[in-house]
Amino acid sequence: MHIHFHDSLDHEKLPVQPAEWDAAAKRAGKLGEGHVVTFSTDFDSVRDEVEVIIAPPYRLQQINMHSAPKLKLIQSTYAGMDSLYPFDIIPRTAMLLNNRGVHGKRAGEYCAMAILMLTNKMPLFATQQRQKHWQRAIGSLANRQRITIVGLGAIGTGAAHWARQLGMHITGIRHGNTPHPDCDATFSMDKLDEVLPTTDILLLACPLTPLTTNLLSRERIALLPSGAGVINVGRGKLVEQEALCDALDAGRLGGAVLDVFAVEPIPPTDRIWTTINMVITPHMSADDPLAYNADTLDIFFENLAAYLAGKTPPTLVDLTKGY
Amino acid sequence: MHIHFHDSLDHEKLPVQPAEWDAAAKRAGKLGEGHVVTFSTDFDSVRDEVEVIIAPPYRLQQINMHSAPKLKLIQSTYAGMDSLYPFDIIPRTAMLLNNRGVHGKRAGEYCAMAILMLTNKMPLFATQQRQKHWQRAIGSLANRQRITIVGLGAIGTGAAHWARQLGMHITGIRHGNTPHPDCDATFSMDKLDEVLPTTDILLLACPLTPLTTNLLSRERIALLPSGAGVINVGRGKLVEQEALCDALDAGRLGGAVLDVFAVEPIPPTDRIWTTINMVITPHMSADDPLAYNADTLDIFFENLAAYLAGKTPPTLVDLTKGY
Repeated sequence: MHIHFHDSLDHEKLPVQPAEWDAAAKRAGKLGEGHVVTFSTDFDSVRDEVEVIIAPPYRLQQINMHSAPKLKLIQSTYAGMDSLYPFDIIPRTAMLLNNRGVHGKRAGEYCAMAILMLTNKMPLFATQQRQKHWQRAIGSLANRQRITIVGLGAIGTGAAHWARQLGMHITGIRHGNTPHPDCDATFSMDKLDEVLPTTDILLLACPLTPLTTNLLSRERIALLPSGAGVINVGRGKLVEQEALCDALDAGRLGGAVLDVFAVEPIPPTDRIWTTINMVITPHMSADDPLAYNADTLDIFFENLAAYLAGKTPPTLVDLTKGY
Repeated sequence: MHIHFHDSLDHEKLPVQPAEWDAAAKRAGKLGEGHVVTFSTDFDSVRDEVEVIIAPPYRLQQINMHSAPKLKLIQSTYAGMDSLYPFDIIPRTAMLLNNRGVHGKRAGEYCAMAILMLTNKMPLFATQQRQKHWQRAIGSLANRQRITIVGLGAIGTGAAHWARQLGMHITGIRHGNTPHPDCDATFSMDKLDEVLPTTDILLLACPLTPLTTNLLSRERIALLPSGAGVINVGRGKLVEQEALCDALDAGRLGGAVLDVFAVEPIPPTDRIWTTINMVITPHMSADDPLAYNADTLDIFFENLAAYLAGKTPPTLVDLTKGY
């Protein structure tokens, strides 16, 4: 097949390199043989022949895929599909694939850190450090805390793994309410309001879709018990950010550890920089450059194998759900 | 026996309460029955009859235990014995007992947090947050890091447990070099200089004694590889604090997470508040008020049982070593 990597090889976001493709194709065995492979941002020169495009979403937005008559598979090198909504750039005759699963292990360790930072009152101590203020406060064993994880994809599953190791009581919220091996209970999204009042730590790891935008609204923040903590490793717009800052500044919530924000980079004048008991990381929780491209390409070959066998590719994006 | 709790019941440091004693005595069965138990800071009224004193070290320093002719057991409610050195206040006819072991589980979770904060570059991001500066940087899976744990008592063992869960390569440094179930290798203290150059994260969890004062000296900090991280949950004076600040401010070390300091509380003018890539918590890593006194009393009853049977109490302090 003609497989086109639509990216600039020297871009700072570490696009797939030819040597990484060669290694992945070798791992894939016969499935990796006999392809025409191109690497460029010159789409016009390949559009008549290209059958597979592999690229990050912001690159996909720059080309007219409707003009590629043989295009069958579009493999995103990101998992989050929110920037492609409402998917009008995706030809109806092609399948959109993402690389969900690739972030699980790294993001799981970030979530373990964030959970332990909340049980150890680290957001409070970070605030006190900024104020040069020494005051002891007491942490808690994680096993005395109840965590609610919204979204049980690769990242939520990684978080649940560590919450289980820490002996926490774990409630999962997911599309449908199918059981999860590391959750004590799972509920569908419409039960969220009933779960929040008994949630010590709320962890958001779900995709951003029209249905999940502002999921953690001002009203829902008010349902959390006093002193509760919030972790967001999904997307910034899952949270009504002003309301979260208000609840932290008022001392009603105990702390927050956020990796994603309504606007990134955070503007210098944003109140979020100085909100008390707030810990910020710059959207890095799932980054793992040593494994990321290799894992993404392995996922692509699993998708390709399924496609060629007439089966559903494992990471096919359901455009009606948005992930 | 006459057991005297030498403390003020309303002190902020949560001294053992009569109800906690009653519950522990009940758990101890016959061993808990038939004792005369007093709670006060009036030592004169009990010194002729007292056989057991239970108190924190700073309270022990306030009384003349040489004046108590029947005193047999001195149960400290702290694990660290450094403030009692050189032990001249301990009568030669009495045994000094500490409560080592009581801090393991809580401190283990703090150490897991500190390890993950270093692998996720959290000290860097905390510094950037203070500066309102957004710049992405890449974390690492913990299993790509080598940790060296100095001291394998309850806290070091708790740290090693989580480092093992995280798949790290673990080197233990301990008195003697006896193997440890969660360490890939163990060495005695005199091999520390050879281990430091291949240490990504150095975790100090050993007691402060004349031999370990300034253990992490300026010279040893220079032996750590560029970008290495340091965690201290032992005592502040294990580290040459000025040298550590110099190495962080110069960008030679990647980060530090410290719970203990040369002087506590940290003076408002201390440079440590503003040293870059430094995360500070106010000596709370091992605090667990919900379990602390109960666990300490259970340890006391184990000591008492051994003493009455003519055996060595499990947490007897070896005054020649200091722990």
